[in-house]
Amino acid sequence: MNYPRHVRLVEVGPRDGLQNEAKPVPVQAKVALIDALSAAGHSAVEAGSFVSPKWVPQMANTDEVMTQIKRKPGVSYPVLVPNKQGMNGAIEAKCEEIAIFTAASEAFCRKNTNCSIDESFARFEPVMEAAQKHGMKVRGYVSTVIACPYDGKVAPAKVAEVSARLLRMGCYEVSLGDTIGVGTPGECVAMIDAVAEKVPREKLAAHFHDTYGQSLANILAVMERGIAVFDTAVAGLGGCPYAKGASGNVGTEDVIYLMNGLGIEHGVDLDAIAKAGREICVALGREPASKVAQALKAKAA
Amino acid sequence: MNYPRHVRLVEVGPRDGLQNEAKPVPVQAKVALIDALSAAGHSAVEAGSFVSPKWVPQMANTDEVMTQIKRKPGVSYPVLVPNKQGMNGAIEAKCEEIAIFTAASEAFCRKNTNCSIDESFARFEPVMEAAQKHGMKVRGYVSTVIACPYDGKVAPAKVAEVSARLLRMGCYEVSLGDTIGVGTPGECVAMIDAVAEKVPREKLAAHFHDTYGQSLANILAVMERGIAVFDTAVAGLGGCPYAKGASGNVGTEDVIYLMNGLGIEHGVDLDAIAKAGREICVALGREPASKVAQALKAKAA
Repeated sequence: MNYPRHVRLVEVGPRDGLQNEAKPVPVQAKVALIDALSAAGHSAVEAGSFVSPKWVPQMANTDEVMTQIKRKPGVSYPVLVPNKQGMNGAIEAKCEEIAIFTAASEAFCRKNTNCSIDESFARFEPVMEAAQKHGMKVRGYVSTVIACPYDGKVAPAKVAEVSARLLRMGCYEVSLGDTIGVGTPGECVAMIDAVAEKVPREKLAAHFHDTYGQSLANILAVMERGIAVFDTAVAGLGGCPYAKGASGNVGTEDVIYLMNGLGIEHGVDLDAIAKAGREICVALGREPASKVAQALKAKAA
Repeated sequence: MNYPRHVRLVEVGPRDGLQNEAKPVPVQAKVALIDALSAAGHSAVEAGSFVSPKWVPQMANTDEVMTQIKRKPGVSYPVLVPNKQGMNGAIEAKCEEIAIFTAASEAFCRKNTNCSIDESFARFEPVMEAAQKHGMKVRGYVSTVIACPYDGKVAPAKVAEVSARLLRMGCYEVSLGDTIGVGTPGECVAMIDAVAEKVPREKLAAHFHDTYGQSLANILAVMERGIAVFDTAVAGLGGCPYAKGASGNVGTEDVIYLMNGLGIEHGVDLDAIAKAGREICVALGREPASKVAQALKAKAA
């Protein structure tokens, strides 16, 4: 087994996790969560998005969140930005890193952002320009890298093409998202290998949803193919908008437990993350979806 | 990646899954479950145990269960047998396969069966004799192959020694159980490699509990080391007696989904298993723990 000695975890719970919550989460709870996550050792905590509140009401208070969090030196707090208008919000909120997002499936891109993949890149142009001007780092997301809820299987070559385009545009890294969490290790490896024909593996991150419980197996498989950056969400926050009641992002606790067992460094403290997870779950009035979180809670009880 | 073309799944839901349920499960519900599992394509369905009802009250009706199930040709229905007395019950119930069980940790063996590992082998002697006389197949279980809830880490060499002893005694296969579900892929591979120094890999099965969500990753890892038999429980039934509220056995649905994605044959129908899982969960008044089961349920809703 050929694993990296060190992986970087990108905590996406406050954004990708919470955005699926129906009830509004107060600014205070988000700020407490983000501060607890950075204190636990995360070097990147996705803090919110500047998307129209009409589409994602849960993220409407991202400007306040960005004002109130403790910005820990060395930690980045990327926010999602769909277009120039969102970028203006990010600049006003003094964000130092943004994330842009498109998809590998035309149908998904259209349903999710109301434009074609090409049009999404046209929207990114003024965003990238402004990012350069303001010295902001830009991360790229590609959704539906395995399959699309509308169009079915997605061709790995398409994922490669979109990923390369994001990097050419100036993204420092591309996060490959199995948005509906249907992938299994063989498909994920094939997809990674196809993308790696066009872009260096060091520029790639994997973003798995645990809808079908395959995330850790997928992480293990793609780690053997040189992937060393993983998006995770504390407590396994989030859900699947395409299968209500299904699981959300892979849990940070579960990934940490896996890495600890393999002796792979990541710099994040499991107990501190689990505590942050329990607190946000209390605020949300739900149980953690992460199995490690559940086991730690059960052991403590 | 070097995976087998075919794996054998051993369904342990009706025994290892249900034995942790506090409320009694009626014979009728167990029989319906076992018949649904064999109809779904399983070639082995663990049907119960002849353990003292004082210790495992949930399994007290195994004799009735064995009388009432439809014995599908080609399917084995092993029952757990701890000693000669249990063996008498298995013979009376016309069982064709039994399973004996010991542990790789002295402390666990003592707490679980009230005897030392050596003494457990002494108890097996008359059982094996009777099995031979009655032409019954015998499967062996080793518990706590990674760690013990009382003694901590377990030495892989100890697992190897106990496994070899079970095979020498006449077991056709040894199932290696991470009873408390704490193992991660590196440890599991190290354990398998140690055991494989003493016994052929084809004689080994892996039995994972999903307490810390690592089961599928562990299965993937040990599959690359030549393991091709896996114990699974429909709906992820069961729980962890050492962490109340934690997950149980790895879900059959989750393992099938993984194997289907990898193109590995197993002969079991996912939808039929998921249906059987939903029905027993209704009978138990609980939600399935299997993420695939949850996702299929969510999609259907």
